[in-house]
Amino acid sequence: MAAAYKTLDYAVTGAIATILLDKPETLNAFSQQMRSELLAVFSDLENNSAVRVVLFGSTGKAFSSGADLVEGIGEHKTVEDQLMKEYAPLLDKMANLPQPIIAVVPGVMAGIGAAFAMNCDLVVMSDTGSMLMAFTNIGLVPDGGASWQLLRHLGYQRAFQLIAEGGRMSAHDCLEAGIANKLVPADQLMAEARSWAEELSGRAPIALREVKQLLRKASVLSYADTIALEAKAQNVCIGTADTAEAVAAFLEKRPAVFKGR
Amino acid sequence: MAAAYKTLDYAVTGAIATILLDKPETLNAFSQQMRSELLAVFSDLENNSAVRVVLFGSTGKAFSSGADLVEGIGEHKTVEDQLMKEYAPLLDKMANLPQPIIAVVPGVMAGIGAAFAMNCDLVVMSDTGSMLMAFTNIGLVPDGGASWQLLRHLGYQRAFQLIAEGGRMSAHDCLEAGIANKLVPADQLMAEARSWAEELSGRAPIALREVKQLLRKASVLSYADTIALEAKAQNVCIGTADTAEAVAAFLEKRPAVFKGR
Amino acid sequence: MAAAYKTLDYAVTGAIATILLDKPETLNAFSQQMRSELLAVFSDLENNSAVRVVLFGSTGKAFSSGADLVEGIGEHKTVEDQLMKEYAPLLDKMANLPQPIIAVVPGVMAGIGAAFAMNCDLVVMSDTGSMLMAFTNIGLVPDGGASWQLLRHLGYQRAFQLIAEGGRMSAHDCLEAGIANKLVPADQLMAEARSWAEELSGRAPIALREVKQLLRKASVLSYADTIALEAKAQNVCIGTADTAEAVAAFLEKRPAVFKGR
Repeated sequence: MAAAYKTLDYAVTGAIATILLDKPETLNAFSQQMRSELLAVFSDLENNSAVRVVLFGSTGKAFSSGADLVEGIGEHKTVEDQLMKEYAPLLDKMANLPQPIIAVVPGVMAGIGAAFAMNCDLVVMSDTGSMLMAFTNIGLVPDGGASWQLLRHLGYQRAFQLIAEGGRMSAHDCLEAGIANKLVPADQLMAEARSWAEELSGRAPIALREVKQLLRKASVLSYADTIALEAKAQNVCIGTADTAEAVAAFLEKRPAVFKGR
Repeated sequence: MAAAYKTLDYAVTGAIATILLDKPETLNAFSQQMRSELLAVFSDLENNSAVRVVLFGSTGKAFSSGADLVEGIGEHKTVEDQLMKEYAPLLDKMANLPQPIIAVVPGVMAGIGAAFAMNCDLVVMSDTGSMLMAFTNIGLVPDGGASWQLLRHLGYQRAFQLIAEGGRMSAHDCLEAGIANKLVPADQLMAEARSWAEELSGRAPIALREVKQLLRKASVLSYADTIALEAKAQNVCIGTADTAEAVAAFLEKRPAVFKGR
Repeated sequence: MAAAYKTLDYAVTGAIATILLDKPETLNAFSQQMRSELLAVFSDLENNSAVRVVLFGSTGKAFSSGADLVEGIGEHKTVEDQLMKEYAPLLDKMANLPQPIIAVVPGVMAGIGAAFAMNCDLVVMSDTGSMLMAFTNIGLVPDGGASWQLLRHLGYQRAFQLIAEGGRMSAHDCLEAGIANKLVPADQLMAEARSWAEELSGRAPIALREVKQLLRKASVLSYADTIALEAKAQNVCIGTADTAEAVAAFLEKRPAVFKGR
């Protein structure tokens, strides 16, 4: 945390890290610098076991307007290069982060900004927020995994409609589709997100890490292969001090204190 | 369009092709001739870039009663041969057609008729329409991909129930499950479908083609592999004249005119 | 059926087999003996074509409290061994049983108990029942395929929330998510389940067996590969005496009598 970030407001309080996209003048468009700073932050968190839960939100009214179109593809030869060299490693880092990430969405999440939110483990939205999928308005396609996420949340025909029409989903539609876990009035959003993070930070970290990996891998595994993967993860969990602590706490009728070991 | 079709009512008006199954005396049962004519029409459309959107509907009250059971397996040795040699190439042609296909369902869609509708990119139904999945009533199983589609729209247990009971879903249940995008009163169905097709025909054709392929392929790809596929598709889109036109139109505050280039 | 079971109440009446988990003093926790007896029963049923439908329920108020934690991993060296050697073959046997299995859930289904219910083809729940996914409360992860099932029924973010919070879903939430097919008042549960089983037992057994396999395999197949698999299954079905009987019954305006041949 010695680093000073130009595009992020980053802080760790207790077991909670809070990353806020902080370029409200561009509605938090993803620039090269923002991607680079996010990769640095998540790489840091990956090895920081004192942090149990990550809040991933924004300053200003928007979550993110998507890619910074003014900056364009920057130093890259092609947009494919940019997506694969800058975005893909960052999205992968988030998907494999040991800690749960809660997306905190105060307003619009657009384009690849929505792809980032949908790559989080949990999503809490302001009830006045929305998701905008406007790629085809300018002749483009969803990127950053948005087509994968939307297909799974909406089914093929609804996902095709949203994307083909360059449409918008209200927060209530996002909740209905399972894109958001919870809606909260805008003025209570960060307080509610923080309180949720606090609750989760008291839960067994190794189990949460393993659950995250299981659910992500299960999406392309067969039922039988998932059973086998669960069995391996259970083996990891059952030998931890945290499981022993949970049993002891239960017998002693006190709350368990998990140490992530 | 020189061809005269015996089982189809086919017309192209502006950028919209309209294919109507036209054997109302059999409730538009799929016969060998109908399959052959549909394959000819879709093969034609595949290379007709003047057509931007395809409406796929029917004359009479039904969308389709499914396979023509009176005709049976025709010249084929087995039903498997018939399905793989006549139905599979036709369903594949629709799945890979560059243009979006809107299924327009005025009444019942039964058996493999429902499989055809669910293979379209968008589905608009009369609010008095329904889907009938009666295969097991006569000891058969869903075909033409219906089991794949129903599993994804309904989940395993609901799909098993519908098929095992030879059941029917109302238009409202189809909407709820994402099988239909929209319900419309029967007497406004074709007008509404046409108006939707007009709207979509003004949107960027290459982006729509790429979205269709992305969403279809993403169903069996991992998240990471989908990100890579999106990046390739974005590369195709970003170099088109249509994307440049979209940006110019935005700066000039006028609607974009897409040419599919 | 010569065997006397210590953990099960098992009976066959007509074409319906009823398996009740019968250790109400442990809320039907899965013990080594229960797993072994279930494997014996399902292995028996696999070859008993007189049985057309299986009811899988419980005595007492709970469906199952999950794994028997007092017994622990028993003779096994690791929990992974136990899961792969005892649970996986049993879940696989159920998944491949020719007959449909209806889970009958009178109260709570917890942990791997819920995994067993979700592995059934149909689920009927008491409207006062619930699903409890408490693994992470004691530092563990879902097993027995529960993560696979929950991902598909709830989507990633909702599944992550349920598991990470060690949460509970009401019967109504289970119905909404497609985890339950039907809710029934508790005092009518077994009567309703039996009546449903009777209805299904009159339907074409080979078609139901093939549908079960198609839908389970389709979850990891592409659309095109599923069409090919359906075509093979249709070939099996169309040659059966049951299909001929269905056609004859239709022409003679009488109910079909299926023999599973």
